[in-house]
Amino acid sequence: MSVTLEILPLAQKVKVRKKALLSEALREAGVPLSLYCQGRGVCGKCLVEVLEGKLPLFRPGEEEVLKRSGLSSRHRLACQYVVDSDLRLRIPERSLLGRVAVLDPAFEARLPFDPVLKKFTVQLPRPEVANAEAELDVLLRAIKSGPLDVPLTVLKALPSSLQASGRLVTAVVREGRELLAVEPGDTSAAVTGIAFDLGTTTLVAELVDLSSGRNLGREACLNSQAAYGADVVSRISLAYEDSGRAAILRRAVLSDMNRLVRALASSAGLSLDRIQAASVAGNTAMNHLFLGLPVDSLAVAPFNPVFSSLPDLPASELGLDIHPQASVYVAPNIRSFVGGDTSAGLAASRFSEGRTTALFLDLGTNGEIVLRHRTRMWATSTAAGPAFEGMNISCGMLAVPGAVFKVEPEADGFRCSTVGDAPAKGMCGTGLIDAVSLSLERGLLTPQGQVTSASRTIPLAGGLSLIQKDIRELQLAVGAVKAGIRLMLEANGLKASDLEEVLIAGAFGSYLSVEHSVRLGLLPDVDRRVVRFLGNASLAGAKAFLVSVPSRQKAEDTAARIEHFSLASRPAFQDVYISSLEFGPWK
Amino acid sequence: MSVTLEILPLAQKVKVRKKALLSEALREAGVPLSLYCQGRGVCGKCLVEVLEGKLPLFRPGEEEVLKRSGLSSRHRLACQYVVDSDLRLRIPERSLLGRVAVLDPAFEARLPFDPVLKKFTVQLPRPEVANAEAELDVLLRAIKSGPLDVPLTVLKALPSSLQASGRLVTAVVREGRELLAVEPGDTSAAVTGIAFDLGTTTLVAELVDLSSGRNLGREACLNSQAAYGADVVSRISLAYEDSGRAAILRRAVLSDMNRLVRALASSAGLSLDRIQAASVAGNTAMNHLFLGLPVDSLAVAPFNPVFSSLPDLPASELGLDIHPQASVYVAPNIRSFVGGDTSAGLAASRFSEGRTTALFLDLGTNGEIVLRHRTRMWATSTAAGPAFEGMNISCGMLAVPGAVFKVEPEADGFRCSTVGDAPAKGMCGTGLIDAVSLSLERGLLTPQGQVTSASRTIPLAGGLSLIQKDIRELQLAVGAVKAGIRLMLEANGLKASDLEEVLIAGAFGSYLSVEHSVRLGLLPDVDRRVVRFLGNASLAGAKAFLVSVPSRQKAEDTAARIEHFSLASRPAFQDVYISSLEFGPWK
Repeated sequence: MSVTLEILPLAQKVKVRKKALLSEALREAGVPLSLYCQGRGVCGKCLVEVLEGKLPLFRPGEEEVLKRSGLSSRHRLACQYVVDSDLRLRIPERSLLGRVAVLDPAFEARLPFDPVLKKFTVQLPRPEVANAEAELDVLLRAIKSGPLDVPLTVLKALPSSLQASGRLVTAVVREGRELLAVEPGDTSAAVTGIAFDLGTTTLVAELVDLSSGRNLGREACLNSQAAYGADVVSRISLAYEDSGRAAILRRAVLSDMNRLVRALASSAGLSLDRIQAASVAGNTAMNHLFLGLPVDSLAVAPFNPVFSSLPDLPASELGLDIHPQASVYVAPNIRSFVGGDTSAGLAASRFSEGRTTALFLDLGTNGEIVLRHRTRMWATSTAAGPAFEGMNISCGMLAVPGAVFKVEPEADGFRCSTVGDAPAKGMCGTGLIDAVSLSLERGLLTPQGQVTSASRTIPLAGGLSLIQKDIRELQLAVGAVKAGIRLMLEANGLKASDLEEVLIAGAFGSYLSVEHSVRLGLLPDVDRRVVRFLGNASLAGAKAFLVSVPSRQKAEDTAARIEHFSLASRPAFQDVYISSLEFGPWK
Repeated sequence: MSVTLEILPLAQKVKVRKKALLSEALREAGVPLSLYCQGRGVCGKCLVEVLEGKLPLFRPGEEEVLKRSGLSSRHRLACQYVVDSDLRLRIPERSLLGRVAVLDPAFEARLPFDPVLKKFTVQLPRPEVANAEAELDVLLRAIKSGPLDVPLTVLKALPSSLQASGRLVTAVVREGRELLAVEPGDTSAAVTGIAFDLGTTTLVAELVDLSSGRNLGREACLNSQAAYGADVVSRISLAYEDSGRAAILRRAVLSDMNRLVRALASSAGLSLDRIQAASVAGNTAMNHLFLGLPVDSLAVAPFNPVFSSLPDLPASELGLDIHPQASVYVAPNIRSFVGGDTSAGLAASRFSEGRTTALFLDLGTNGEIVLRHRTRMWATSTAAGPAFEGMNISCGMLAVPGAVFKVEPEADGFRCSTVGDAPAKGMCGTGLIDAVSLSLERGLLTPQGQVTSASRTIPLAGGLSLIQKDIRELQLAVGAVKAGIRLMLEANGLKASDLEEVLIAGAFGSYLSVEHSVRLGLLPDVDRRVVRFLGNASLAGAKAFLVSVPSRQKAEDTAARIEHFSLASRPAFQDVYISSLEFGPWK
């Protein structure tokens, strides 16, 4: 026996089995609804409006929930509705199963919306003398949950939360495992997390609405640790020699993070304890320093990290100024020098799920390179130095207002575009690549990197110019990445032309010119259509870990599965590196 | 195809399937071995000695483990040994699956030995450059464990533990879920927990060797909260009126507990941080006060507790001076006035598993009564007052040295036996019951409790005597218990003679005279052979939660399943109570 569903606004008509659960029937018909509470009938997220057809009676409490949400008496929960006649339905937009974009919208990898925190608002009955059940049990039954971990602080506050609100409370549940808070009243509209990209040079944080995946704000700042060393290696050395210094480095980055937290919370009009989840993506050294772990093993061969993946840690233990019970997830490390920033980027782009031959590049102070071929993946890291971030360059700067990010040829010189159209103050990584590539084309440089003019400088626009040392810095950075890619391809019997995808993450963002990169040899000379820019994939991955919990397990599996490709231990490395220092396209 | 196993010292011959795993074959033959590590081949607990038959090659690392343990080259791990020829085996005593007695040996309920903490000693390989894996991953693989929760403190100490001991370490794992510590060297011989019975009047603690279930010491002290009120109700009132007082009560019991911890650790020659697990069984009010939970809901109708069962809490959060990461399990509350002490006692005696019609009595300041009939259980609590503990009696005292615990008739008086054969200093509960029963028999008292002599006193031995008020105190206590039992039996259409088991837990221990209890009416007039004394079942249950983890889930299930039998809300209660005040046997 079957009945017919007419589904608006999709203008779809489907036949479904009579007596089927409506949510099931819709899923089978290709219209999956949000089952935030796993079909337990408590979250009210799978509402449908019955325009024509037989309405089942309200379930106990259902009518009150609908009224509180300002819904009509023709709304019902699809996860509780047994279909037994033809129906004409309207599915509200909010009931459709969310998929959430964590990367720039241009990149279509979308993740199933399944946030780390879920809120359930319930009106608890008054306790009865005849069966004076424990308050916690009454609450867990109301949200139809099994046993949860319950921090003592939550238990202590439970009676007063119940009393403050006439027993209408909102339970905040982390990953179906922990009762993180019980808030008086209906607070289900606001549930917030914060994602951090812990870069060696810059920190970026994004405040995320966990009920929708929406961005509530983004802030960045320089990493104060930079005062103690521009690159990871110098900071590790410092911390290794003196554990007091390690504590200073930890406090430096923590105070940066807390500054970002306060700035974001204040713009969003939130109190700090409303931020109830966090995730952190940073390279291995950055996350070891942030967690206060010894970095000794990162300082000496064989450079093995203390951990790869970790369960959530409480914010209070880490010193993050958000809700003290907030869970903090740290993106898994792949190896010592391929860290959580890379695993986050891979998670955001769903890299491990693809089956093409593909390259993932994250070009910062370290260049991380991941190659995927058939079902295998290899990762390596190559010390590019800070040139790509505009550092150690005479006129270099980060990609902030006033930085030249694009250089184009003009009649007898260069036209420079700056971030924010501000007067040119310096040159960031992408501008440097353009400028060097154009200089090469005009013969101002040899392919070996020699500046041909007597002055050994290349004047650009607005008083900026490049000196011989700047060219050498870029040459070393490009050569390191090029050698890494070449060795990984060769070791697996691949040529650059075999690459079906080249994904570029990192500080470069979408400013990087593929054309100039290919001319210098930073990227292999591939079909330009296979190159994609991911933007800040590390931050996107950190966000993915908040709004799509299954991405955590995927990232951990990926980190465990990726094979370590050690450049240093390959006999050909020195040769390939030296031959990669020459500018020029390669295939 | 089958082969023959000759099993010594059991002198048993069995045929088993060829190619079977030896541990499996032995289990099927009714000789279950200890599978502490669930057959992962890492704990070395299922060793067998192969006297005749084909020995398999050592597995990597197996020989070293055997040598370290001083075992012969003919020993093998049964969980790794595939049988392919006839064998003559000797099974060392230590390899047989442990069952552990938590109650007095006279009571045979034994629990499967499955301690909350397990230790795994492993020699980790040196990390390699070619595949510089995370230290944590290397450790987890060595102990063949999946992902575990890892506190940050453990992770921070991991590198130094590895370094301190040439990478020979002992991992302490809680319930297969958390890596509680990584200790340098082989510390597998010492793994210790502490069980607490948190009584209203007295606290008892037992130090437990979690590698064997052995008792390492027992200490008791008075509950310092008694200074603020002799019974639970007065302490709840105090805490309810003034949260400052609640904090004082919490600190009082905590400092008692920590005093017991220090005394036990010092006698056993252990440092405090070697105590890595704890369990606490106390009534609902006691555990709420200990946890620092509000007791408001316990003070007013409908008297519902804040929690029934809870996951483990860290010792450091509770203020217990043991290993800061030690997990503390709190025995589940059944209802407000039937608490964790009762659920612990039920767990220790495996009460919920029986199918006879049975009564469980815990007679302290509150009398807890649990009735089991077919598959159902009911629990109630009745306010007996502290008479059973020798309190509020003119010459009363706890059952400590000098207390009269037994009174027997002599020619023209009474012969008193005292605890520790010390000079009589006072009378404890069991002595009081004997003395009052004998006084009744001699006509020194009426069944209504009236002292017949003009002086209104009953002289006993050694200058001790009972006064009219003492008789009234006992009469109220006995009447409360009797009324409770009568109502529960009647409500279920049962008579006392239907009882197939009467289990008595609590302070009375084995001193209570069944005969005198029956003559007064405290116990129904049942076949004496069905009465069993459990001793301190609350402490035994707390110990069960440490040495036999499955008993936790059973206790939680029992707490959820037991039906609340509210005496106060039964119309017949007052009548039955008043008629129960008269001394005399009943059926």
